[in-house]
Amino acid sequence: MPRYRITIEYDGSPFVGWQAQASGASVQDALERALQGFTRETVRVKGAGRTDAGVHARGQVAHFDLERDWEPFRIREAMNFHLKPAPVAVLDCEVAAPDFDARHSARGRRYLYRLLARRAPPALDLNRVWWWPRRLDADAMRSAAAYLVGRHDFTTFRSAHCQSQSAVKTLDRLDVAVVGEEIHVTAAARSFLHNQVRSMVGSLKLVGEGKWRPETMAAALAARDRARCGPVAPPGGLYLMSVDY
Amino acid sequence: MPRYRITIEYDGSPFVGWQAQASGASVQDALERALQGFTRETVRVKGAGRTDAGVHARGQVAHFDLERDWEPFRIREAMNFHLKPAPVAVLDCEVAAPDFDARHSARGRRYLYRLLARRAPPALDLNRVWWWPRRLDADAMRSAAAYLVGRHDFTTFRSAHCQSQSAVKTLDRLDVAVVGEEIHVTAAARSFLHNQVRSMVGSLKLVGEGKWRPETMAAALAARDRARCGPVAPPGGLYLMSVDY
Repeated sequence: MPRYRITIEYDGSPFVGWQAQASGASVQDALERALQGFTRETVRVKGAGRTDAGVHARGQVAHFDLERDWEPFRIREAMNFHLKPAPVAVLDCEVAAPDFDARHSARGRRYLYRLLARRAPPALDLNRVWWWPRRLDADAMRSAAAYLVGRHDFTTFRSAHCQSQSAVKTLDRLDVAVVGEEIHVTAAARSFLHNQVRSMVGSLKLVGEGKWRPETMAAALAARDRARCGPVAPPGGLYLMSVDY
Repeated sequence: MPRYRITIEYDGSPFVGWQAQASGASVQDALERALQGFTRETVRVKGAGRTDAGVHARGQVAHFDLERDWEPFRIREAMNFHLKPAPVAVLDCEVAAPDFDARHSARGRRYLYRLLARRAPPALDLNRVWWWPRRLDADAMRSAAAYLVGRHDFTTFRSAHCQSQSAVKTLDRLDVAVVGEEIHVTAAARSFLHNQVRSMVGSLKLVGEGKWRPETMAAALAARDRARCGPVAPPGGLYLMSVDY
């Protein structure tokens, strides 16, 4: 039973999220249905990151097993054909080792969060950025972000629904860059807690607005108290960019 | 009667184009209705470039006259409020000289065309790029583009519906850049013929595919014959980026 690994891009807007749920279309459903469309097999697709409703991906990775052998190139083509018109595209497909696991084999994940800081609302980037109609101080955000990098207990920045056994994680990078009218926050770690990136970005935005000083971020982290987190950033600005193995 | 100048961003996908037409919603309609929503005046909005159906703008410029004086800041805010949910945003509004004309005062226009050259279709950039599932030779495209820069008779690259009196135009720039999996063509000129950018890009793509040699572009230009133009590039990849005065 050969195992395959795919790299996927999707627009998260119309989906209930990565994971199949009782109601609504998930990215996982779309991929499994596309596979069934040409293999006639009932396939389970497992992803590296279970992105929430509205969160996008430029480089999600997933794996699945098929009964018979297929050329990886043909799998990619057939999946893209059967995925239409869902906004999901298989960028790459390759044969994986039998013990490859998209989720557990991952050594690093990288997310991008896009904030649009300008008076006018987005017309071309609706559901693709978090629109904030005032100025944000990127330098202050950068100072605050520095407190979060490293190995910490991230309880403050963790969803109540998080199923992770430990809140201790190592955040490798949390970069703040100004790109035109946007502020891009890039987060990299071996793994993240549920809602961790959006929780950190929501708090960074308070620093950008001037409501928090950068040191407030250090205090919030040290408190290990969910109530000290800023409002969680909306999903549409978040992109799972890549997964490393 | 004060005159105002606005800078506008829009997603061209749902519109019949810039210009008001008998059937379908135009960007001009959306702006005029938004103005009427708070001024109660019947206003005519005139744009710098009459973009076709599906063509986007990051920096379209338009002007209009109002009966009474308004703070430009308030016009921008009120227009953005009344434009909802149309994907049109007023980025800027200022008072203009009485003789300012968005179309005729323009000294330069800049367009961007985005080609996505990869096997997988776009999921996040549907209707935002022209998808081509094979490799494109950007160097060959760059060589071909060089033949078009300068003052020429652009009859070959002009729509049959073009109303311009002369087909002689000066193309200031036609740059070809590789940006990740995309090829970006930037065109700058005082003014363009109808469909000129999309006609030039459609022909450049033939060069990128290897169907035309770069010199074929020079011959097509010299022929001054519409039949020598490549297939016109689709509208979704085109963006009016800025207008200079």
